[in-house]
Amino acid sequence: MSKTADSLFCPEKHFYGPDSEKIYIEGSMHPVKVGMRKIKLSQTYNIQGEEFSFFPLYDTSGPYSDPSAELDLDRGLPRMRDSWHCNQNDVEESPASIPCPMNGRKPVRAKQGQPVTQMHYARKGIITPEMEYVAIRENQQLEAWIERSPIKGKPFKPVTPDFVREEVAKGRAIIPANINHPELEPMVIGKNFRVKINANIGNSALGSSISEEVEKAVWACRWGADTVMDLSTGENIHTTREWILRNSPVPVGTVPIYQALEKVGGIAEEMTWEMYRDTLIEQAEQGVDYFTIHSGILMDFLPAAAKRTTGIVSRGGSIIAKWCRAHNHENFLYTHFDEICEILRAYDIAISIGDALRPGSIADANDEAQFSELKTLGELTLKAWKYDVQVMIEGPGHVPMNLIEENMQKQLEYCHEAPFYTLGPLVTDIGAGYDHVNSAIGGTLLASMGCAMLCYVTPKEHLGLPKKDDVREGVIVHKLAAHAADLAKGNPVAWLHDNLMSSARYAFSWNDQFNLSLDPARTRQVHAENSPDNADTVTDDNFCTMCGPDFCSMKKSQEATGKP
Amino acid sequence: MSKTADSLFCPEKHFYGPDSEKIYIEGSMHPVKVGMRKIKLSQTYNIQGEEFSFFPLYDTSGPYSDPSAELDLDRGLPRMRDSWHCNQNDVEESPASIPCPMNGRKPVRAKQGQPVTQMHYARKGIITPEMEYVAIRENQQLEAWIERSPIKGKPFKPVTPDFVREEVAKGRAIIPANINHPELEPMVIGKNFRVKINANIGNSALGSSISEEVEKAVWACRWGADTVMDLSTGENIHTTREWILRNSPVPVGTVPIYQALEKVGGIAEEMTWEMYRDTLIEQAEQGVDYFTIHSGILMDFLPAAAKRTTGIVSRGGSIIAKWCRAHNHENFLYTHFDEICEILRAYDIAISIGDALRPGSIADANDEAQFSELKTLGELTLKAWKYDVQVMIEGPGHVPMNLIEENMQKQLEYCHEAPFYTLGPLVTDIGAGYDHVNSAIGGTLLASMGCAMLCYVTPKEHLGLPKKDDVREGVIVHKLAAHAADLAKGNPVAWLHDNLMSSARYAFSWNDQFNLSLDPARTRQVHAENSPDNADTVTDDNFCTMCGPDFCSMKKSQEATGKP
Repeated sequence: MSKTADSLFCPEKHFYGPDSEKIYIEGSMHPVKVGMRKIKLSQTYNIQGEEFSFFPLYDTSGPYSDPSAELDLDRGLPRMRDSWHCNQNDVEESPASIPCPMNGRKPVRAKQGQPVTQMHYARKGIITPEMEYVAIRENQQLEAWIERSPIKGKPFKPVTPDFVREEVAKGRAIIPANINHPELEPMVIGKNFRVKINANIGNSALGSSISEEVEKAVWACRWGADTVMDLSTGENIHTTREWILRNSPVPVGTVPIYQALEKVGGIAEEMTWEMYRDTLIEQAEQGVDYFTIHSGILMDFLPAAAKRTTGIVSRGGSIIAKWCRAHNHENFLYTHFDEICEILRAYDIAISIGDALRPGSIADANDEAQFSELKTLGELTLKAWKYDVQVMIEGPGHVPMNLIEENMQKQLEYCHEAPFYTLGPLVTDIGAGYDHVNSAIGGTLLASMGCAMLCYVTPKEHLGLPKKDDVREGVIVHKLAAHAADLAKGNPVAWLHDNLMSSARYAFSWNDQFNLSLDPARTRQVHAENSPDNADTVTDDNFCTMCGPDFCSMKKSQEATGKP
Repeated sequence: MSKTADSLFCPEKHFYGPDSEKIYIEGSMHPVKVGMRKIKLSQTYNIQGEEFSFFPLYDTSGPYSDPSAELDLDRGLPRMRDSWHCNQNDVEESPASIPCPMNGRKPVRAKQGQPVTQMHYARKGIITPEMEYVAIRENQQLEAWIERSPIKGKPFKPVTPDFVREEVAKGRAIIPANINHPELEPMVIGKNFRVKINANIGNSALGSSISEEVEKAVWACRWGADTVMDLSTGENIHTTREWILRNSPVPVGTVPIYQALEKVGGIAEEMTWEMYRDTLIEQAEQGVDYFTIHSGILMDFLPAAAKRTTGIVSRGGSIIAKWCRAHNHENFLYTHFDEICEILRAYDIAISIGDALRPGSIADANDEAQFSELKTLGELTLKAWKYDVQVMIEGPGHVPMNLIEENMQKQLEYCHEAPFYTLGPLVTDIGAGYDHVNSAIGGTLLASMGCAMLCYVTPKEHLGLPKKDDVREGVIVHKLAAHAADLAKGNPVAWLHDNLMSSARYAFSWNDQFNLSLDPARTRQVHAENSPDNADTVTDDNFCTMCGPDFCSMKKSQEATGKP
């Protein structure tokens, strides 16, 4: 890696653009400091009787947006969570492992028989630093505003650390946070919290380099990804992951079977439980926060999959199906599920139970294969919870609008309200080139009904691997989807954000509009390109670049209604 | 205009790309010939027992995609509808008007007291050539397939000319087709037909030229716009519109008040009914197919609008509001509504009753101002129907996901099932730079509930005027939304389209995937860029560029399930 964090990540003078600064909110129970982006507004806006001259934003960019942080991609981010010393009596150095080549830290694991998962502590009534951290984070310093809950019929409460604990204890939310990922800024996934999004990165046999993937990961966080998944499959899997983990302020997920398959030269039938298990431990000690594991695809379901238009479109699922058929043996990720849970709870790795039989086409949506597997995912959820392992459930796929609600209802019913984490769904099969939009459409509807995290899809879906610009498109449109779902759920913070944006729009405050938009750099650039003089500086003219002065509706509206 | 149709419109050798040809389906009642794009598939696909080696597509590109058509932008398209001689006894040359400067045709109008609208003929039991045309068009030559209606619980019937007539007679559908727009290929807008989309074009005082706007209009049709609206406001309004109309195979809509305002130098209060009326007639004789007229905003509603976060965001609405306030007089588009209807029925111009009080922010969604106006739009609908004038109703705007259904229900209830034509809705206020996606999200949900036409939004919304590439993004993502809504409504033709796409995907038939996608040029290009050798030619390798050979789920799925 030759690039420095600065050259990689801070090409502009101000990371956030002008008018924003990094702030930290301190916890009262633990020594946590939660970073946020504070937008300074150009004027004071009165929203329902309350005055706002700044707005604190949920911020996934980590230390990269702190001008005082010392960044060194070769050594990784500061190891914030290690300084919390929260579970030090429950863990020990992992005996066989070697120190991290980047920062020298030795991996830890739980002491024998001692679970160290957030769910374990939650059930014991213990509020961890991670729980306090995410509670502060969700509220965006707007507790008073949330108390007033301005939206009719949608009562809301600020998130308390104890509420987080309760939700985690019940399995309704997870905080993916491997004890070997101390660089992590904790976040929570669950239907009673802000909707989150994940960005997939990772190279394949056909291209891209480690530094390209690290760059994509870091930029994904900057643009708003709440987690990233490293889906690398080509060479250098281990090293790529190490770089991503050490430099990632957000949880990192993987699909360990990809590395297992590389170890046997791509021949699915040569995989064994033992080498898969060793792969889990290898990744656990590196600090992966959640694993996608396709334990729910059973031999019984394969005949239904064979009847489909597009068979099995999950990569992990197709590998397992091929293994099962070759050995005429049940899925080893199912038969060894207890041992898997024992590993996961020793590092606090959340399991994202893979939907190997998600529909890959509209024709296959909500079919027997899909829902049979979903029921099994529910059974596995209960088993994992016995081990205090945090669980989320992966979901479709391709589903037409009219069948999306059934997916959400069945997932809640079969999987006991474990968080739903879905790819899209894409609402048509013919969207290639525009599948990021396709996915955002289905994702918004599903998330507004309770889906907790959306996996982004980029414009390259079905066609190739995303490059940095595709990551940007994918992240932003899914942030938009997640935010729109939060609005639909009546979240007062999301609602305030929109209200400030619209107030700025009605006041012709262009800088505030840029700063409050999902992609300030993009809006600033587009506006400048469309201004008559291509002006780089913005004057707050009382009309906009779409209609010109005579046809500005807001200008005329203000003249007609006498406001403001 | 210096560009020829060829240079403007056919930069590639094949208009549609390879493997597609223009076909025409002849009517049995009238001398109509309906153009479609016939995709030749690389293999025969078996879909539910029926074999498909080609697929005919609904095609909005008009003569531009016919290699045998003689195109001349300076003279306009062939005047197809004039050759149908359908209403020749009901019309006469318009006495005062001058021949079209481009093609010499003299405008016609209805003979005194003789309505010439599609609704008039429909109510008389007459099936016009336009009705037969749209019936053929909707079925895409797939009547047999539609009869089988493959989707459970969603019985469908092929569209017959008499069904079109019935729907038009009841006001549930419209065929916007000014008798002075003979270049038009008729299309139908209504909830029992395919969901349509509109593309807005037009220059403003701040930029763009006539040829740029014509180019955008023509390309919008190529990409799939079902109608275009010319929203020009700057200089040359009349001439720009003439060029667009003469070269447009799709219906053209306008907002006549924009030109009226130009005539009084941008000073709203100087407008008079007389000059507005003259503007209507001027545009009627040019051939505009539908007018947005903001007749529903009444003085009574202004206090509610004044309380809003973003007041009045409709340009036409804000002009009227300003006029009302200046004169302390009711909206002249309301008080002169009968005279307006008399003009419209003399040319068969559909009225798109404008929602001057559509919410421009989430905070204003579904408020008193919006729904008060919507009720008035319903009253005006009944009045227009008395004149046999075809009506559609314009809709929001900015509406969060959870309030979208109420919009559709109230529109159906208040407006007697007149087609709903909506701008988005945008599901959040903070999407600037990505508002095309924002709009596609809300639009898909609304259209799946019965909205008949979506007005596109481009990435430039709230920031500037769209350029050609923005038009492409806007059109394609709204085509995606409309198609996804058709799927949700159980349309068997849409469903077949997706099924063929997925079958091609599972068969690794790349060319078929490109041709069946919404934007073949884009998918072909993206795939080529991502192929290992940047190959321009496509080999149908049994794996794709996303995952490479070892991680191709479909390859493994076929190996595991023994299919195909």
